[in-house]
Amino acid sequence: MTRQVSLSRWKQEVERALSTFNERSAMPSRLHDAMTYSLEAGGKRIRPALVYAVLETYGRPLSLGHEVAASLEMVHTYSLIHDDLPAMDDDDVRRGRPTNHRQFDEATAILAGDALLTDAFALLASTNTSPEKVVALVASFGRAAGSRGMVGGQLDDMLAEKQSGVPLETLQSIHERKTGALLVYALEAGAILADASESDREALKAFGQHLGIAFQIQDDILDVEGDEALIGKRVGSDEQNDKTTYPKLLGLDGAKAALDREVTMAEAELASLSVEAALLRALLAFVVGRNH
Amino acid sequence: MTRQVSLSRWKQEVERALSTFNERSAMPSRLHDAMTYSLEAGGKRIRPALVYAVLETYGRPLSLGHEVAASLEMVHTYSLIHDDLPAMDDDDVRRGRPTNHRQFDEATAILAGDALLTDAFALLASTNTSPEKVVALVASFGRAAGSRGMVGGQLDDMLAEKQSGVPLETLQSIHERKTGALLVYALEAGAILADASESDREALKAFGQHLGIAFQIQDDILDVEGDEALIGKRVGSDEQNDKTTYPKLLGLDGAKAALDREVTMAEAELASLSVEAALLRALLAFVVGRNH
Repeated sequence: MTRQVSLSRWKQEVERALSTFNERSAMPSRLHDAMTYSLEAGGKRIRPALVYAVLETYGRPLSLGHEVAASLEMVHTYSLIHDDLPAMDDDDVRRGRPTNHRQFDEATAILAGDALLTDAFALLASTNTSPEKVVALVASFGRAAGSRGMVGGQLDDMLAEKQSGVPLETLQSIHERKTGALLVYALEAGAILADASESDREALKAFGQHLGIAFQIQDDILDVEGDEALIGKRVGSDEQNDKTTYPKLLGLDGAKAALDREVTMAEAELASLSVEAALLRALLAFVVGRNH
Repeated sequence: MTRQVSLSRWKQEVERALSTFNERSAMPSRLHDAMTYSLEAGGKRIRPALVYAVLETYGRPLSLGHEVAASLEMVHTYSLIHDDLPAMDDDDVRRGRPTNHRQFDEATAILAGDALLTDAFALLASTNTSPEKVVALVASFGRAAGSRGMVGGQLDDMLAEKQSGVPLETLQSIHERKTGALLVYALEAGAILADASESDREALKAFGQHLGIAFQIQDDILDVEGDEALIGKRVGSDEQNDKTTYPKLLGLDGAKAALDREVTMAEAELASLSVEAALLRALLAFVVGRNH
């Protein structure tokens, strides 16, 4: 019960923060419309939830995390806009609505993504905490989202899609960067803001790594046996697209066993924290238990 | 003489800094190749030169400015890569070589731009100065390059190209954001690093504004009467493309008079500084005197 309440509350918090920060003033209205269109498309807001969950775990006010949470969601959103472009995945629909470049046009979508990415750093720099912490946040965010993180993972994913026989190691490395890096950063950022000890911070990052892999394995499993109406895409689309997935490499049972292992390791990291981590355990359970 | 020496030295400094910072490790080699291809395409490196010129003006070591200078050039470079894309200006050639998406492919060019932009912030966060200054630099850089600065200017420029009869005010506002904002930031960043007084900092920013407009007017004039071999594009291409320019709105003589006014105002700002600004005056002279 508490679990559900927190999730929707965190979602509300970041959505309110996003609409506060995303002012219309001093920018072309078409750019604002395109940015807002994708920011308001919804989604689970898992990255912001991780930030807020860490803050609550350490008894800190959620307001401390608004800039970090909103900037994370802005960068996640820009990555979706650019991934959907014709030159990339060429998707027409996301979350039941036309993708950004279908709703506006390709040039606007490219620029809306660029603006979200850039504005995210300006917003992060305005975080009301010590300058030392802000610098640590910016450095970490840039590494997680850049050539050695998310963007690098996206490029390798694109190259891998053209190949058959991608080994497990490569698949894991792609996911660690493409989706894992921002999840790990969300936890690290929460730890920085909350003044967590060095060892708690490392444990939270390790938790994030296992969470990220678990998230991806679960995604692949859902594609095999999920409910089409809930996941919003055709079940079996990965296999049809000849995509390398955990079930393909390990078999469905093997993938489920790998998921269990990641969850166990993630829980062990939480157990090692100096604080009670019920909220983060609930978030983990939500991620691996989700049916969409 | 000194003028030329400094310019080429500053260019060397930033190019050395770029190759030091732009390490191949831990990123897809194709991504590194694409980023490096455009970073090494050359250009006048005016933004870094402004940073270094301010540091020299205040007697500070150039090494203090490497992260700021290199990150500026990375953001300038990303903006050129994205501007050249088929959905934007659809250019095949830049600086005599195939544009990034022609040399690699569109998806790689989009991601190389995204990576340069993101990595630029990570690099800037590593600047070896006080955390207070780093935060100020990141905030200012993000504002200058984002929706209210460069990206917003680019979008309005795109919209303006589809219209005829763009008024002078709109033209100016587009240039102030599309090219001016990063020039002003370069000067502000130099002032922050050099510990310039508040009033010097404001004067340097105002200098940057006039320099930016002067730069653009000169660009438009060169398109009318420049030497094709030197400017690397066909003279008269703006008119052929029905582009709104200063000569079109003000006439060629009017544009030259406007250029003179901007230069006079820029020089007045330099004269108001607490230090002797010969280097910045020389840079201004280079910008407005350039024949390419």
